[in-house]
Amino acid sequence: MSDLVTTVLHLPEFGPGLHELTSHVEEWCHHQSMTTGLLTLFLPHTSASLLIQENADPDVLLDLQSCFARLAPQASHYHHAQEGPDDMPAHIRAALTQTHLSIPLLEGELALGTWQGIYLFEHREHAHQRKLHLHLAGV
Amino acid sequence: MSDLVTTVLHLPEFGPGLHELTSHVEEWCHHQSMTTGLLTLFLPHTSASLLIQENADPDVLLDLQSCFARLAPQASHYHHAQEGPDDMPAHIRAALTQTHLSIPLLEGELALGTWQGIYLFEHREHAHQRKLHLHLAGV
Amino acid sequence: MSDLVTTVLHLPEFGPGLHELTSHVEEWCHHQSMTTGLLTLFLPHTSASLLIQENADPDVLLDLQSCFARLAPQASHYHHAQEGPDDMPAHIRAALTQTHLSIPLLEGELALGTWQGIYLFEHREHAHQRKLHLHLAGV
Repeated sequence: MSDLVTTVLHLPEFGPGLHELTSHVEEWCHHQSMTTGLLTLFLPHTSASLLIQENADPDVLLDLQSCFARLAPQASHYHHAQEGPDDMPAHIRAALTQTHLSIPLLEGELALGTWQGIYLFEHREHAHQRKLHLHLAGV
Repeated sequence: MSDLVTTVLHLPEFGPGLHELTSHVEEWCHHQSMTTGLLTLFLPHTSASLLIQENADPDVLLDLQSCFARLAPQASHYHHAQEGPDDMPAHIRAALTQTHLSIPLLEGELALGTWQGIYLFEHREHAHQRKLHLHLAGV
Repeated sequence: MSDLVTTVLHLPEFGPGLHELTSHVEEWCHHQSMTTGLLTLFLPHTSASLLIQENADPDVLLDLQSCFARLAPQASHYHHAQEGPDDMPAHIRAALTQTHLSIPLLEGELALGTWQGIYLFEHREHAHQRKLHLHLAGV
């Protein structure tokens, strides 16, 4: 007899790079009084993405940002250019990471490892305010 | 008291590149008369993949295709070559994207953003007919 | 009236590269006596990841490993270096692949394609023992 709750988080305006969402997401989960289930996060955007990454050393986040800038550089050879030189690289970086994440809920807590955090990865150069859908099904 | 439905879509034969599936998937969801839930798409193939991407400018799809051709080029250094020079790059491009996607269903509609479409990314050079599993759990 | 079961698999110690988990995961699913549902695998680690890939030719696994070593090389330009030269590349390779996978269960069997296997991709140079969460919801 499982239950199902959903919400939309309106995230703060974030500039380019990785921004941790773990405590926002955990706080919402704690209010749903479920003990076991599956949380799914879904980002309705194509130039930002989701990532679970190391939450200990902030240098990891900088290195990730540099690496994705190298894998999907701003360059002059893209056909899609009318939304600015940072838009096509943003779509590629989103394609290489995640639009959705699913994380089990166990004994009322997300099954994240000790060093795992949930991040929004903003790929545009200017700050954007993003929405995030949360879907939790369980008991 | 959640419900659960599944189906298999037999997709049209698609050549290399990104092919939008959004309307096929939405149409099936509309027939399930659920209002809230989670749709999961699962592709039982290893040389094609799934991607949520921008649905507005077709140039985005071409640029994505070029970018993945650059990240995982056809090259002579692969050990796995007996299925043709396009097979190993296809596996790598699939590894860099998605075999499954999960999208919340809210008020009977998928929570896709305005600019988001669901795509099959065919990585082989010759056209293939692919199957797609749909799993919808909700109320 | 769906049911929900979870477990934690304690995987064997694995060295760098791709290690197939399909039979471990299938065996657990078979013991849950469900016929239809959704299995979600979640890896609570940030320097290993999950991948569904070709299970036929072992060369595919070697080529994948080489390719990710090329996309995210050990290099001297990372800021995050105190956990060893293989740690930052491990985080990047994890970001480019998956921390979670969802696979439908149909007639008691995972909907994996004929050539699909479930793999743990260990990105560190030394062998590690990893945990894997399994979450199965269905009927």
